[in-house]
Amino acid sequence: MAKGTVAYKILESHLVSGKLIPGEEIAIKIDQTLTQDATGTMAYLQFEAMGVDRVKTELSVSYIDHNMLQTDYKNPDDHKYLMSVAKRYGIWLSKPGNGICHQVHLERFAKPGKTLLGSDSHTPTAGGMGMIAIGAGGLEVASAMAGEPFYLKMPKIVGVHLKGKLPDWVTAKDIILELLRRLTVKGGVGKIFEYFGEGIKELSVPERATITNMGAELGATTSIFPSDEITRAYLRAQGREEDWVEILPDPDAEYDEIIEIDLSQLEPLIACPHSPDNVVPVREVEGIKVDQVVIGSCTNSSFVDLTRAAKILEGRKVHPDVIFAVAPGSKQALELITQNGALLTFLKAGARILESACGPCIGMGFAPPSGGVSVRSFNRNFEGRSGTPDAKVYLASPEVCVACAIAGEIIDPRKLGIPWVKVEMPERFPYGDEAFIEPLPEEEAKKVEIYRGPNIKPLPEFDELPESIEGEVSLIVGDNITTDHIMPAGAKILPLRSNIYAISEYVYHYVDPDFVRRAKEIRDQKGKANIIVGGENYGQGSSREHAALAPRFLGVRAVIAKSFARIHHANLVNFGIVPLEFKHKEDYNKFSLGDELFIPDLKNRLQEGKEIVVINKTTGEEIVCTYNLTSKQISVLLKGGLLNWIKSKQGVKV
Amino acid sequence: MAKGTVAYKILESHLVSGKLIPGEEIAIKIDQTLTQDATGTMAYLQFEAMGVDRVKTELSVSYIDHNMLQTDYKNPDDHKYLMSVAKRYGIWLSKPGNGICHQVHLERFAKPGKTLLGSDSHTPTAGGMGMIAIGAGGLEVASAMAGEPFYLKMPKIVGVHLKGKLPDWVTAKDIILELLRRLTVKGGVGKIFEYFGEGIKELSVPERATITNMGAELGATTSIFPSDEITRAYLRAQGREEDWVEILPDPDAEYDEIIEIDLSQLEPLIACPHSPDNVVPVREVEGIKVDQVVIGSCTNSSFVDLTRAAKILEGRKVHPDVIFAVAPGSKQALELITQNGALLTFLKAGARILESACGPCIGMGFAPPSGGVSVRSFNRNFEGRSGTPDAKVYLASPEVCVACAIAGEIIDPRKLGIPWVKVEMPERFPYGDEAFIEPLPEEEAKKVEIYRGPNIKPLPEFDELPESIEGEVSLIVGDNITTDHIMPAGAKILPLRSNIYAISEYVYHYVDPDFVRRAKEIRDQKGKANIIVGGENYGQGSSREHAALAPRFLGVRAVIAKSFARIHHANLVNFGIVPLEFKHKEDYNKFSLGDELFIPDLKNRLQEGKEIVVINKTTGEEIVCTYNLTSKQISVLLKGGLLNWIKSKQGVKV
Repeated sequence: MAKGTVAYKILESHLVSGKLIPGEEIAIKIDQTLTQDATGTMAYLQFEAMGVDRVKTELSVSYIDHNMLQTDYKNPDDHKYLMSVAKRYGIWLSKPGNGICHQVHLERFAKPGKTLLGSDSHTPTAGGMGMIAIGAGGLEVASAMAGEPFYLKMPKIVGVHLKGKLPDWVTAKDIILELLRRLTVKGGVGKIFEYFGEGIKELSVPERATITNMGAELGATTSIFPSDEITRAYLRAQGREEDWVEILPDPDAEYDEIIEIDLSQLEPLIACPHSPDNVVPVREVEGIKVDQVVIGSCTNSSFVDLTRAAKILEGRKVHPDVIFAVAPGSKQALELITQNGALLTFLKAGARILESACGPCIGMGFAPPSGGVSVRSFNRNFEGRSGTPDAKVYLASPEVCVACAIAGEIIDPRKLGIPWVKVEMPERFPYGDEAFIEPLPEEEAKKVEIYRGPNIKPLPEFDELPESIEGEVSLIVGDNITTDHIMPAGAKILPLRSNIYAISEYVYHYVDPDFVRRAKEIRDQKGKANIIVGGENYGQGSSREHAALAPRFLGVRAVIAKSFARIHHANLVNFGIVPLEFKHKEDYNKFSLGDELFIPDLKNRLQEGKEIVVINKTTGEEIVCTYNLTSKQISVLLKGGLLNWIKSKQGVKV
Repeated sequence: MAKGTVAYKILESHLVSGKLIPGEEIAIKIDQTLTQDATGTMAYLQFEAMGVDRVKTELSVSYIDHNMLQTDYKNPDDHKYLMSVAKRYGIWLSKPGNGICHQVHLERFAKPGKTLLGSDSHTPTAGGMGMIAIGAGGLEVASAMAGEPFYLKMPKIVGVHLKGKLPDWVTAKDIILELLRRLTVKGGVGKIFEYFGEGIKELSVPERATITNMGAELGATTSIFPSDEITRAYLRAQGREEDWVEILPDPDAEYDEIIEIDLSQLEPLIACPHSPDNVVPVREVEGIKVDQVVIGSCTNSSFVDLTRAAKILEGRKVHPDVIFAVAPGSKQALELITQNGALLTFLKAGARILESACGPCIGMGFAPPSGGVSVRSFNRNFEGRSGTPDAKVYLASPEVCVACAIAGEIIDPRKLGIPWVKVEMPERFPYGDEAFIEPLPEEEAKKVEIYRGPNIKPLPEFDELPESIEGEVSLIVGDNITTDHIMPAGAKILPLRSNIYAISEYVYHYVDPDFVRRAKEIRDQKGKANIIVGGENYGQGSSREHAALAPRFLGVRAVIAKSFARIHHANLVNFGIVPLEFKHKEDYNKFSLGDELFIPDLKNRLQEGKEIVVINKTTGEEIVCTYNLTSKQISVLLKGGLLNWIKSKQGVKV
């Protein structure tokens, strides 16, 4: 029980069912939703299938920020679909070029004390504004838009006590990199990180958002800062002080755990390939030659980030062998750096200016050369995510990035001999509606016809869970498999997000190019279920539900793993794939590719809360499995997935 | 004979061999070359094969402006190759983000009175500066870098007399659209267009460059303006007045033909799908709903273009249903609009800001939705070139584009009720070296190691022309086939430009997806030559030599057409494909797909200047063909292509 904490207070005020005891299932009311165009098309196809006439949230926003390369008709068709859906159902639409959803949401819509559910794993960015902001699969966001509460297991609330003051050249990014260094990418599972202490007083809202954003890399449910005078000043500068409410932890607030970070002891850090928790001091990897550098992404491309990076570059040039790019986080940030001269500084230093979009962070352009070294102000550096399978991607603060761009190699920025620059937040942010399309009034909205280009394919329908499963092991993978491994993104595959038939051809594409053929053979020729065997933290990373939906389409009915990442675990359930956990982790070794499995009496055992026994018919062994499922999740699984569950609840014929 | 004209004077001062009589073969010294990254990798592979130690031109520049999406390792690997080649061979390198080659060349390197050969069909842009600037295949540019003169048939010099003054809302773009309307895309074949008259006094250098740029769409060899006080003022503002020389036509200059355009009679024009000569007044197509609008490309994205477009947008918003993008032509232009507030105006109106690159013009991103209408300030609107096969692309001035973006439909901008804006050229352009890599001194250059990523494949070797050809008709196409038809570009195919084995799989991909299979079958199983039958103006459009190189790799040894576009005709010769013309155009109908052909005694007849007889063994008919080949071209054909020819000339073992 973490009464008196900021997170507890907001959860309490939104509680629909359950008790706020760690591990218990709770349901909370969702005030706001956000989607982006890579997850959004599917989310809205699902929302449409629910038969609801208009969103039931206080605010829902559809952002177009991911698939903006538009190398053929697919992306623009999806955008046109999203634009028409927004008009039809009372949703705000943020046009392409307006910026990255999390940045723009912070600037424009995030409100202290509210709840936000977003179909993007970095939705916790808005936790920097003192709201409970959670990433989820598109289907769950669709059901929140339909007025359903959001179900989750009450997380532990971990207090992160920030002591002391950051030294020069050490920034918010280094705070979250330090946490990743200590806790690893699994360290946040089942937890909310709530920041407190004198250290937070020095952090502006966008800096807080850098920390809550990348809390996603810890596997955390979300991260949050109090709503204080700094929050108020930010909202005032955004022209919406009226959205401010003070939410501070009570003096006697009790956290389930406490972590202390002495800010004065931190130094510039960097995450090495290929994981955000592979963190070392920058000085330990100095001298590595750099091919490209890029500042951007929802983590670190706010006004302050860009302005300080520009100040460091003033009068300097990018190293001739380095390609340096800047992707402003939002149109607002780009407007500000246009006005204050920072953009001109970037140009005069020889920078490329990319669009205000997710871009290279999601493998949409600016891929590094073969085997190349790229230093990025981003939040993820999973193998291949950059678009170049053998590239080596490092993650660091924008300040470290710029130093590397100047030096042509990885360098601790303190060695450049440049004085540290303090950047003040603007008194007033530029604030216009020109790149938004506002929701239409209800009567007008009903007349809108929805545009469906040829890339938008109807959802496949899924059957209910059978009594027992006859299956075959079609894949065995190790620890920390990411959703990028399961369902790769990148410029070739992302545009297929609204077409399950096409995108499912790429499941596990870079891990095992033969998987899809095998899976289909098991599904179609053998008429059996596919079963995947995984290690620890299965499904970490991006929230993409296609990592569950596409395997389900290929016939996967169960994943047996040592442990699961939270969002992916939920996505598996939502698409009717049973997530089973080894009772004894060493049983992981009792499976080989192609083993024939039988899971008897699965449906009844789930309903009765009994352990599941998996019989390996090939070896004759029996493996006991548990599961970490709420009663709601079990009923969803039995129906064959959340969409079936909601349809039957809303009285829509399944 | 067009003595006393600007074009004649420059050609005369560069003449290496031949007589300046229309139709006669001449060879001219080349002072400058330019390449871009889509044609450049192949050009430099060819240059390397020539065994020359350093470029022999006054100036050679390698631009990176086409393949900048970088959806995987291929583009950045090519860029890294180009960067290392430039260092090795004494070439200037313009880094990605620095801008579109033609814009940047105009700003930085173009010099009145000089000759420029570029591996891009829009190289004549620099004709706006009073230079002879010609587009050619990469192999010819490579051979110019190796010190070889450039061979061409002396064109007719056509005087374009610009009378009167442009009305408000009518611009340089409308002058060239008017010429296209009158002359069609074939109207400029074998011609240089030289502009004179009081009308040119009102046109700044970038406006002149809009006209000379799009002269390429007429099929012209090049276009040129005099070098006058306006040229001098532009060079002064660029900080290089010392590059100016006056070159005016003599008072008694005689043009081979004269065309008159009364500027005061022009109105805003627009080229409709799918050809730049499908030109009508804007008012005739008003009311068509628009999905997207984009300003950019080497034709119309200079400082003046962008600033005026912004002024029109001031205080206005892009229509909610329209996606509007701006791609500044160069970093210099982007710097200027950052300083003068135009960029801010674009942002406040809701525009997307794309990179300073060719981008959507070459199908690299920003594709329209399916069947969508796109209005662009570009120079080409061939079917499918946008990346969306069924999109409808219109070409117009930036002013018309902006009007459409505001209105959400095609509209004559005079109807908007906005006063016409006059934009002055800046006194001084920003001018920095930060995005260039300067050539290294010779000794240092020799030590540079050339980087070759896995996408860079060695050139295939081609054999000499056989005595006779046994062949089969593997394709029959109609009139005005473009090089985009033959060798498509776009985000999927452009990155394969350094890999002939991979890119040849896409030859005629959208015209006849079965062509490649058939061609290989004829080449490999049947052991015969592929022969293509074409109509008028075969090979118009882009200068890409891959439209000859890849077919040659697939086994095409001859194209029989009614007529050829100039650059493609030269490219065919350069890659050892014999371009034959029907003596009687109606013989075009005497071929069917799969007909077996025999061309006896080809080699001797070419050498002896005799007509070629093609025997259709399937029908028994004999078809007489002519050819339009210089003696040099015949010797190149006999060697199997220009690279073989130069190698044997330079003493490199073939």
